[in-house]
Amino acid sequence: MTADHGSLAIDTDRLLRHLAELCEIGAIPGTTGCARLALTDEDKAGRDLVLAWMRDLGLDIRIDGIGNVVASTPSESGLAPVMTGSHIDTVATGGKYDGNLGVLAGLEVIETVISSGVRLPRPLAVAFFTDEEGARFAPDMLGSLVFVGGMALESSLTIEDSSGAVVGDELERIGYRGTAPTPGPTPHAYVELHIEQGPVLEGSGIRIGVVEGVQGISWTELKLRGQSCHAGTTPMQLRRDPGLVASRICTFVNDLAMDLGGAQVGTVGAMTFTPNLVNVVPSEVTMTVDLRNTDEAVLRAAEAQFTTHVSSVAQRAGVEVERRTLARFEPVSFDQRVMEVVERNARSLGHSTRRMPSGAGHDAQMLSRICPTGMIFVPSVNGVSHNVSEYTDPADIAAGANVLLRTMLELAATGF
Amino acid sequence: MTADHGSLAIDTDRLLRHLAELCEIGAIPGTTGCARLALTDEDKAGRDLVLAWMRDLGLDIRIDGIGNVVASTPSESGLAPVMTGSHIDTVATGGKYDGNLGVLAGLEVIETVISSGVRLPRPLAVAFFTDEEGARFAPDMLGSLVFVGGMALESSLTIEDSSGAVVGDELERIGYRGTAPTPGPTPHAYVELHIEQGPVLEGSGIRIGVVEGVQGISWTELKLRGQSCHAGTTPMQLRRDPGLVASRICTFVNDLAMDLGGAQVGTVGAMTFTPNLVNVVPSEVTMTVDLRNTDEAVLRAAEAQFTTHVSSVAQRAGVEVERRTLARFEPVSFDQRVMEVVERNARSLGHSTRRMPSGAGHDAQMLSRICPTGMIFVPSVNGVSHNVSEYTDPADIAAGANVLLRTMLELAATGF
Repeated sequence: MTADHGSLAIDTDRLLRHLAELCEIGAIPGTTGCARLALTDEDKAGRDLVLAWMRDLGLDIRIDGIGNVVASTPSESGLAPVMTGSHIDTVATGGKYDGNLGVLAGLEVIETVISSGVRLPRPLAVAFFTDEEGARFAPDMLGSLVFVGGMALESSLTIEDSSGAVVGDELERIGYRGTAPTPGPTPHAYVELHIEQGPVLEGSGIRIGVVEGVQGISWTELKLRGQSCHAGTTPMQLRRDPGLVASRICTFVNDLAMDLGGAQVGTVGAMTFTPNLVNVVPSEVTMTVDLRNTDEAVLRAAEAQFTTHVSSVAQRAGVEVERRTLARFEPVSFDQRVMEVVERNARSLGHSTRRMPSGAGHDAQMLSRICPTGMIFVPSVNGVSHNVSEYTDPADIAAGANVLLRTMLELAATGF
Repeated sequence: MTADHGSLAIDTDRLLRHLAELCEIGAIPGTTGCARLALTDEDKAGRDLVLAWMRDLGLDIRIDGIGNVVASTPSESGLAPVMTGSHIDTVATGGKYDGNLGVLAGLEVIETVISSGVRLPRPLAVAFFTDEEGARFAPDMLGSLVFVGGMALESSLTIEDSSGAVVGDELERIGYRGTAPTPGPTPHAYVELHIEQGPVLEGSGIRIGVVEGVQGISWTELKLRGQSCHAGTTPMQLRRDPGLVASRICTFVNDLAMDLGGAQVGTVGAMTFTPNLVNVVPSEVTMTVDLRNTDEAVLRAAEAQFTTHVSSVAQRAGVEVERRTLARFEPVSFDQRVMEVVERNARSLGHSTRRMPSGAGHDAQMLSRICPTGMIFVPSVNGVSHNVSEYTDPADIAAGANVLLRTMLELAATGF
């Protein structure tokens, strides 16, 4: 290690240029957004571009059986790398920053270190993981889940999208069914830079979020079955209206989250009426309920209250309920030591910081199963994400990438 | 008039056979339902069949510019006919009885009278009106509206369906753009037999509904616009959730109808979330609200309370509202004299009767603008209609058709 790495800084223009170039692939006309659903032709083109940049830097490339790509600085130390990364797949109406920023800032950190001639005891690595969004293949965070040994490769390869296309076949088709084994090698530490995707940092005028962990997530789908009937001819007291039950559940979920307060959120994002006609009481309504909390005990209490409410309101209305758990993750806590390194380096660069949970899932939560892990958040304008108008100020991008740089330098130099 | 018509009765088997034959056209496989949307090939085939039956009876046929077909017993009296009828178009998931029963029972009444040799002072007529359902071309009850002069023929002919097909062209195509003028000739009286399409008669064990009128209808579409955001990362108090507002409106509409009581009904039949994803607070929700009452003053009060509630709940949530009136009809009252004739004849045949409003719209409400009008309801099993499993017991069909026969005989013999 040389002594001067404390003055290093990333090249903001180069990072913004890389972000812009990657976003041209799958660009959504008339917007600054892009669509590169996992393992599509657009995803392949995005992967090829980032892989070329990785090769230009002379990095060692490792592609595993689920298509995760890890690029490391060459090293003969035999020490585990300090790793960063994220994903470059997007949702159908994706923005420029979600995932891409973490990968390209990681690449920028490595390019900065290589260009500077700084030599570190530990290698640095940057990864992009397959299908983080889960927008095409469920579950989300699939690649990092397989990387950490949370799902067998064989199982992951048989997953189908809604049209019947299979992960394994699609990986073959786009040339990213690699040969490196899974689970992958354990990093010394993992730090991921990501946009917040929420309004908290912007709202509080703070530049750097030091992420404490990821909220626990409970997703439930309810199918409510009543009796379709004529809106004009059926007296109110003879109805079995699943739309009314769905509406009562939706307002309950909101009131429950408000009452519990703190980090508790509750959302009904989807509701589908059948037959969905002005003059017909619906026969069936399908709805989803998303409950999240950083505290597993509170999340369980919320789930219990929710379950009781659904049963009682449905029974009172003569509506049948079929429930299905779509996802259930316990809260994840990141490593205190990594948080402290992030926080100290952010402050030494003059940035305001705030410890906060992540409301969204990230690859980092999978990596936290196998190594000390942390995340760095930068503000999202208006809290907008998963949307073509997703935007983060260049000054915030530069700040986040430099905090990532300093954090990786410190972890690679001194460890913990 | 001969004196013996008090002993006449319709041929139930023949009527049921006609219903079954008509329902084979556009039959929905695996069900007893059928689909004959207005002015489609299936509607043409249904019209051709019923027209052939009308011709077999030697009736005078009149087809007007909007495709309404009126078949009358030949008469040189110059007196206006006692008319019955309904429609033979269906919704996409239509049952066997809605509309069809009124037309084929009318035909059966006329065949019964002709076969009996009974001679009446006034002619009898049976009609089927174009596009009563409004399932293909809005508004519903289009043919009878034009028949009574409520819409100019020229306007009706330019109406388009959702694919851009035009009423006038479709009438030409299926050969039912007739030459008889509209408005049509004013009948002496009009009586329509129809299934209730609701659960009231079955629930109260009563066979014949004496319809007092048609509820006033107020249909509103609301577009609620909020702010799409991430369900995990957006604190509750920073949300502008149109789904929550829609749910509050839905529960309010139900509570409003329950509170007002009486004939008031309120329904949210359609609700569409955008983007409708489990982990995204919706950006927009479109919903419909259907309010009905037999009392115009109460209906107006309900509308006023509804409007106030929508404004306040949307404002509180920071959600914008765009409202559009989809339909507004004042309540219709049928003729007391026709009601009395129906009631007396039903009772003299030994049937239980109940005066009741119609919750649904019917061609009769258009005819009531130009002549004394009434309706006869028979029970719908489970109140189900606009559904392939729509069913009415043959004994109830026979009862309703015989009440129609007696009513038409009396009105044609003695008038009022």
